[in-house]
Amino acid sequence: MTSYIGKNVLRVDAPAKVTGEAIFSSDIKPHGMLYGKCKRSPHPLARILSVDIGSALKLPGVRAIITARNVKQSYCGECLFDQLPLCDQYSYYIGDEVAAVAAIDEETAQEAIDLIKVNYEVLTPVLDLEKATELGAPAVHPELESIKQNIAYQVDFERGEVTAAFQQADLVFEERFTTSPVHQCYLQPRDCVAAWDGDRLTLWAAMQGPFEWRKEIANGVCIPESHVRIIPCYVGGGFGDNASRIWPIAALLARQAGHPVKLAFTREEEFTSGRPFTSAVVKMKMGFKKDGTLLVQSKDIILNAGAYMGIGFAITTVAAGRVDNMYRVPNVKTSARLVYTNTTPRGALRGFGTQIMTFVIESMMDMAAERLGLDPKEIRLKNASQKGDTSVHGFIFNSCGLSESIKLAAEESNFKEKRRERYQNYGIGMATTIHVAGNRTIIPVYDGSAAIVSIDDTGTARIISGETDIGQGANTVFAQIGAEELGMDIKDIIILPVDTAVSPFSKGTYASRVTVLGGYAVRLAAQDAKRQLLAQAAEVLNSSEDKLELRNSQFYVKGSDEVLVPLAEVARQVVIKRCGLPVIGQGSYTVPDYVTKAGKEQQYYGNYSVAYTFVTEVAEVSVDTESGEITVPNIWAVVDIGKMINPKMCEAQVEGGVVMGVGYALNEHYIVDQGKVLNAGFRDYKLPTFSRAPQIHSFFVETVDPGTLYGAKSIGEAVTNPTAPAIANAIYNAIGVRIKDLPITPEKILKALKEKL
Amino acid sequence: MTSYIGKNVLRVDAPAKVTGEAIFSSDIKPHGMLYGKCKRSPHPLARILSVDIGSALKLPGVRAIITARNVKQSYCGECLFDQLPLCDQYSYYIGDEVAAVAAIDEETAQEAIDLIKVNYEVLTPVLDLEKATELGAPAVHPELESIKQNIAYQVDFERGEVTAAFQQADLVFEERFTTSPVHQCYLQPRDCVAAWDGDRLTLWAAMQGPFEWRKEIANGVCIPESHVRIIPCYVGGGFGDNASRIWPIAALLARQAGHPVKLAFTREEEFTSGRPFTSAVVKMKMGFKKDGTLLVQSKDIILNAGAYMGIGFAITTVAAGRVDNMYRVPNVKTSARLVYTNTTPRGALRGFGTQIMTFVIESMMDMAAERLGLDPKEIRLKNASQKGDTSVHGFIFNSCGLSESIKLAAEESNFKEKRRERYQNYGIGMATTIHVAGNRTIIPVYDGSAAIVSIDDTGTARIISGETDIGQGANTVFAQIGAEELGMDIKDIIILPVDTAVSPFSKGTYASRVTVLGGYAVRLAAQDAKRQLLAQAAEVLNSSEDKLELRNSQFYVKGSDEVLVPLAEVARQVVIKRCGLPVIGQGSYTVPDYVTKAGKEQQYYGNYSVAYTFVTEVAEVSVDTESGEITVPNIWAVVDIGKMINPKMCEAQVEGGVVMGVGYALNEHYIVDQGKVLNAGFRDYKLPTFSRAPQIHSFFVETVDPGTLYGAKSIGEAVTNPTAPAIANAIYNAIGVRIKDLPITPEKILKALKEKL
Repeated sequence: MTSYIGKNVLRVDAPAKVTGEAIFSSDIKPHGMLYGKCKRSPHPLARILSVDIGSALKLPGVRAIITARNVKQSYCGECLFDQLPLCDQYSYYIGDEVAAVAAIDEETAQEAIDLIKVNYEVLTPVLDLEKATELGAPAVHPELESIKQNIAYQVDFERGEVTAAFQQADLVFEERFTTSPVHQCYLQPRDCVAAWDGDRLTLWAAMQGPFEWRKEIANGVCIPESHVRIIPCYVGGGFGDNASRIWPIAALLARQAGHPVKLAFTREEEFTSGRPFTSAVVKMKMGFKKDGTLLVQSKDIILNAGAYMGIGFAITTVAAGRVDNMYRVPNVKTSARLVYTNTTPRGALRGFGTQIMTFVIESMMDMAAERLGLDPKEIRLKNASQKGDTSVHGFIFNSCGLSESIKLAAEESNFKEKRRERYQNYGIGMATTIHVAGNRTIIPVYDGSAAIVSIDDTGTARIISGETDIGQGANTVFAQIGAEELGMDIKDIIILPVDTAVSPFSKGTYASRVTVLGGYAVRLAAQDAKRQLLAQAAEVLNSSEDKLELRNSQFYVKGSDEVLVPLAEVARQVVIKRCGLPVIGQGSYTVPDYVTKAGKEQQYYGNYSVAYTFVTEVAEVSVDTESGEITVPNIWAVVDIGKMINPKMCEAQVEGGVVMGVGYALNEHYIVDQGKVLNAGFRDYKLPTFSRAPQIHSFFVETVDPGTLYGAKSIGEAVTNPTAPAIANAIYNAIGVRIKDLPITPEKILKALKEKL
Repeated sequence: MTSYIGKNVLRVDAPAKVTGEAIFSSDIKPHGMLYGKCKRSPHPLARILSVDIGSALKLPGVRAIITARNVKQSYCGECLFDQLPLCDQYSYYIGDEVAAVAAIDEETAQEAIDLIKVNYEVLTPVLDLEKATELGAPAVHPELESIKQNIAYQVDFERGEVTAAFQQADLVFEERFTTSPVHQCYLQPRDCVAAWDGDRLTLWAAMQGPFEWRKEIANGVCIPESHVRIIPCYVGGGFGDNASRIWPIAALLARQAGHPVKLAFTREEEFTSGRPFTSAVVKMKMGFKKDGTLLVQSKDIILNAGAYMGIGFAITTVAAGRVDNMYRVPNVKTSARLVYTNTTPRGALRGFGTQIMTFVIESMMDMAAERLGLDPKEIRLKNASQKGDTSVHGFIFNSCGLSESIKLAAEESNFKEKRRERYQNYGIGMATTIHVAGNRTIIPVYDGSAAIVSIDDTGTARIISGETDIGQGANTVFAQIGAEELGMDIKDIIILPVDTAVSPFSKGTYASRVTVLGGYAVRLAAQDAKRQLLAQAAEVLNSSEDKLELRNSQFYVKGSDEVLVPLAEVARQVVIKRCGLPVIGQGSYTVPDYVTKAGKEQQYYGNYSVAYTFVTEVAEVSVDTESGEITVPNIWAVVDIGKMINPKMCEAQVEGGVVMGVGYALNEHYIVDQGKVLNAGFRDYKLPTFSRAPQIHSFFVETVDPGTLYGAKSIGEAVTNPTAPAIANAIYNAIGVRIKDLPITPEKILKALKEKL
C-alpha cells in the first residue's frame, strides 16, 4: 500500500548539489560586504594586558577593529557559558580570539591583524588532562571561581550493589583505555555572513541547530533573541555541531563596521580553533559469572573539554551511561569528569561519546570471553538486552534487535568459520553498540518537533520544518513522508529551506532525532492538511469526503481506479474559494509519556529516548607484522533500524559511518603538544581515504518499534560507533595483541608485538 | 483607543532602503550567473525570413543563443496572449525581441547580438492610431485572423435614453481631446535573474503581481505553474506593471545555457521596449440643462495598444466608464476601442485610464460652466454624486465625500476670491476625480486577499501576505494593522517578503486595492492569531482569556494597567507547549456581496469596487504669454480617503501623485515617429523636476466607509488624475485659451494665443 516509505527515492537535494545551484554560506555576498579575520592568542594561557589597534586602524581598507574593550558583548549562554565572543581578561588556548578586523578584502584584514599588538602576561597553563584535576593544579579559567580542580562537569551515579557484585563475580578485571582527540573533518570550513538591519541581525551559516544558536548569539551580542534571524545554508559536512565564536564575532564586526561581514576560517584555523572531538581516559572494571553473565561494572572517565566547555557536559553524560544499557547488567558505578585544559576547545562528533565507551566495553567483552572460554558472539548474546527490558539506567526497549543483529552479522560474515580457520595474521572481530533516536537529557524541555504543510493553488505541497538537513538526507525523508501521507507525487512536494524567520522552532539536528521526531511532526502536519484538503475538495467537487481518495496527486473515486480530476485543478479551486489562502496543516509532536527526562535531577536515570538502535559490526583485518600496517578488507554492519524509510540512504549512512569508524580506529589523531596543534591540516592529519575503505556489507533488521514513526529508529550516529572495537577485536584475533589506545597505529602494533615476545 | 491606525508610523522599509541593505533584483547574483541581451527588430513590421546565429555562437564567452526556432515556447496567456516570448514569423515593432544571447558578461553578449544576422521582409506597418481602424488598413498582426481592423478590444454600452436626452438638453457641445503617451519613468530599469533547478524555475524580479505573472511565465516557457517560483525583490518604482517579455526570455536563456541568467534593460531599452502608457483620442459630447444639470454624455475613445495588447483591455474598460460615475448623469453612451499599431506596446500607469477621462470630462465641465454662466465649483456640486447613490454604471456609494472635497478645496485655496481678483496671466482651476479601491472587472474571480500571521517563541509576529509593496507603503500599513489588532509593539511585527513559494496567492498591486483588501486579510489573520494566543496564554498563565489583555506586547490584567508578563515570555511557553509550532492565524477576505462583477457579460454594469475615492484638486498657474511657459506655484488636493491609516504616507502619495500629474499635464510626451521613439532617455524625455513641483497642500476628508477596513478607501492612483484638468482649467482662467491636447507645452500655448487673437 505504501508508495514512498521504504523506497529508494532520489535525494531531493541531489540536483542542486550536483549542478552547483545549492547555496552555501560562502556563496552569500550582500552588497558592501567586508571580510573579517581574527587575531589569535599565541599562548596557552595568558593575561591580556593591553591591545593596541592604533596602527592597524590606520591601514587603508580597514573598516572596523573590535576587541573586548570596544564592543558590547556578553557571555553567550548554555553552551558558551564560559566564553565571551572575544577574550577579555585572559586568553585560554593557542588560537583564542582576542580581536577581529573587518576590511575590504581578506589580505587587508590579515595585514591589519598582524599590525595589532597584544601585550600578554604569560601564565602557567594546564596541558595534561590527568594532571589538570590534581590538587594545586593551576586554573585553566582563573576567573571562574566556581570551577574546582578544573572540573567543568561531573557525572556520578551508582545503581545496584556494585561492591557486593564484584565480590560475587567469578571473573573481575580492570583495564585502562584511551581514545584520541579527532577532528570532524567536514570539507566545508566554517564561515558565515552577518548583516544588520538597524538593530536586527541576519546570519547566514551552516548550522545543525539554528534555533539553539540563535539564543547564544543573541546573548553574545546583547540583543533580544527576536532580533536574530538565522538562515542556515546548505551544509558541507556536519558530523557534530560547529559551535563556534565565529558567529558572534562576525555579528560584532558587522555592527561595528556598519556593513555586512563575512568571516571564514582557513583550514588551519579550522584545526586550531575549531571544535575537535574530545579524547578520553577510561578506567573500567568488569565482573562476570563463569557462564559469561555480566554482573557488574564500574568506570572512571576523564574527558578533555579543552579551554571551553561547549556541548561537553552533554557528551560527558552520554559517555557516562549510554552504552551500559546495551547489556543486562544490574550493578553499575560511574564517575565521569569533563576537565578543562588550556588546549583547543572540544566539540561534538557523530556518536557523541558513544564511540568512546563502545570501544572500551566491546574490547573488554572480547577479553572476558577469551578468559571465560566463550565465543565473542555467545558472550554478547548471553548478555544482550531484549525487547521488553528496562535497562539499568531506565531505558525501555519496546523493540530490540540486538541479538538478531549479532546473529545476522555472524552469519553473513561467516564469523564462526573464519575465526576457526584463521590464516596467518588474519583476524575477524565483532562489536555491538546502542544508540538513541532523540535524547531528552540533552533537550530538556521536550523532545519533539513541529511542522507546517501548506498546499497552494498549483497543487504543490510545501513542508516547513525547523529541522536541518545537514547532508544526512532529512529533507528527502520529509518529502517521502509528505508524499506518503498526502497521497501526492513526491515531485509535487517541496521542502522549504530552514530559516528562523519562517520555520517552526526546532531543537536541531542532534542525537539522531530528526527522522523520528521531525518526521513525525511532518506526518501529523500532512495528515492535518490532507483532512482539510479532502473536506474542501468535497465541497468544490460537490462530492463527499468519504467518496474521495487522493493518490499520486490525483483525486479518485474512493476504492476505484477512476481518476476524477487532478489535484492541481482542485487545489486551484480550493484556494480561490479561500481567496488565496493555501490549505495549512499543522503538526506538533512530542515523545510519549514513557520517554522521560534523565538529567542530573533524575540522577541520570530515565528512558530518555523513544527508541533505541542497535548495531553489530564484524570487521576482517589483515596485519602486516613487519610494518605494523593494518588493512580492513571487509566490514559487515547489521543495523536494527526499526524501519527503513529510504534503504539507499540508510546504506549511505552505514558506508559513511563505517569509514569514519575506520579512521577513528586506525588513522585519526589530533595531536596537541604543549597546547599547540601539530597536524593542523589535511596534509598532516590523516583522514582515511578510499584506499583505506573496506568493502562494506550493509544489512538491516526491521524490528518496527511500536512507538515511533512507521516503526523507524535511527542510524546516522549508531553505525560509526562499533567499527573501532570490531577492528581492535579482529586485530587481537589476528595477531594476539590487544591495543587499548586509539588510534591503532603501526607503531603501537609493532611495540605490542615486541612486548608480547 | 487605537494605537497604530491613523498614526504616522515610520515606514518599515525605510532603514533597509536608506542603508542600502534592501535587495533589488540587480543585487541578485547566483553562482555561475550569465548576462543576457536581446536582439531587436529594426522594423515596425517585418516577416522574419531567417535568423543566422552561426558566427555569434562562435564568439568566445557566448553560452547560449535562443530564437523562436530553437526553444520550446508558447503564447503566454491572458495579458500576453498575442505574444510569444520571442518573435517567430513576424516582428511587430521597432525593438521587438527576435533573439537573445547569454554570455559571460554584458559586453560579450552585446557583441554576439551584433553578430546575429536576421533576414527580414519589410512589410507596410500601421503607424497612425486613427487610420489603423479604417477599412482596408494593413494588419498589425497579420497572423491573428480574429482581429478585425486592428481592433484589439472594444467596449460599447448605452444607458438611459441618450438620443432623447440630447434633444432635451439646453446646452449640447462636443469636443475632441487627445492625451499623449507617457512613460512610467520608474528609476529602476527592469531586470531579472532566472535560474533553473532541474525543470523548476526561480525568477527574481521587481513585480507588482507575481502570482499573475507566474502563470504567464509558466505558459511562455511551457512548464506547469507549480514549477515557477517568483521572488519579487524591492521595487525601485512601480507606477504600473512592468509587464514584459524580459521574464520568459531570461528563463528560456537560462534553460538553454544551463546557468542562471540576468537580463537587464538599458534605459534606452526601457523606453523603446518597455510598456509606456497609452495615448488616447476622445470625442466627447455632453448635454446640460440651463441650471447646469448634466443630462447626457456620449463619447468615442480610441486607445493605442501599440504592437501587443498587454493589460490594455482592462485600461479600455476603465477609460470607457469609470469617470462617468462621478456625476449624476442618467444617460450615457460609450464606444471605446483599443487599437493595434506597429509601435511600442503600451502598458499600465498609475491612474489606469482614469486620468484620460478625468482630463476630458473635467475640462468640459469648466467649458459648460462658462457657457451656462456658472461657477466651476457650483456646476460640480450640482452634479456631484452623493452618499447613497447608485451611479449610472452601477457604482454604489456607501460613502461619498465628493461635495465635501470640492467645498474644502475651494475654501482652502480661496478659490472664489482668487478667480475674481485675477492678476495678469494668473489663474486658478479645479478638477475632481473618482477612483476605486479594488476592481472586480480586472480581477474576475474574486477581489480579496489572504494573509497568515504567525507568532513565534520570541514573541515576534510575522505577517505573510502575497500583496507586494511597490513603494507605496503596503508593508508599513500591514505592520500597523498587525500591531493594532494583535496589541503588539510594531517593532515586534515583521512583514515577510513576498515569495510565491511561501506567500498566499494574491491578485497583486493593482487598482489601489492593497490596503483595503490585503489589509483586511491581514486584520482577519491577526485577529485569528490573537484569539488563539489569548486562549493559549490563559492556559500557560493559569488564567482565563477574559481576564487577559494584550497591549504593546505585554499581557495586562484586563482593564487595568497592571502588567502581568511580557508577551515574549508567554510566547516562549506557548510555543514550547506546542513543541515548536508557532501560533498561526489565517485570514481570508473577499469583498461583500454588493460588490459585483462588471465585465463584458454584465455589459460593464455593476458595483465593482467596495468603495470609491474622490479627489478634488485646485491648481494655481501663472503663464508667461511671451514664452508660453507655465508655472504651477500651488496645488491644493483634497482626498476623500475614507480613513487615513498613516497620514504622512497619505501626504506622500498626494505629493508624488500631484507631481506625476503635473508632468502629465505639462511636460511628458513619449514621442513615436514612424514607429521610432525619438526621446528614449531621460535627457530627451522631460520628467518634471523639483523646480517644476508646486507647493502641494494636502487635505483629507474622512468619510469612513461603512463597508471597508477601518473605513479606509484608496489614494495611490486617485491623486494623480485631476491634476492635468485642474491645470488646464487654471490656464483657461489665466489666459482664456483652452488646450485640449496633452501635454500643454509652451508651443501649444503660443499657438492658441495666436489663434485667439
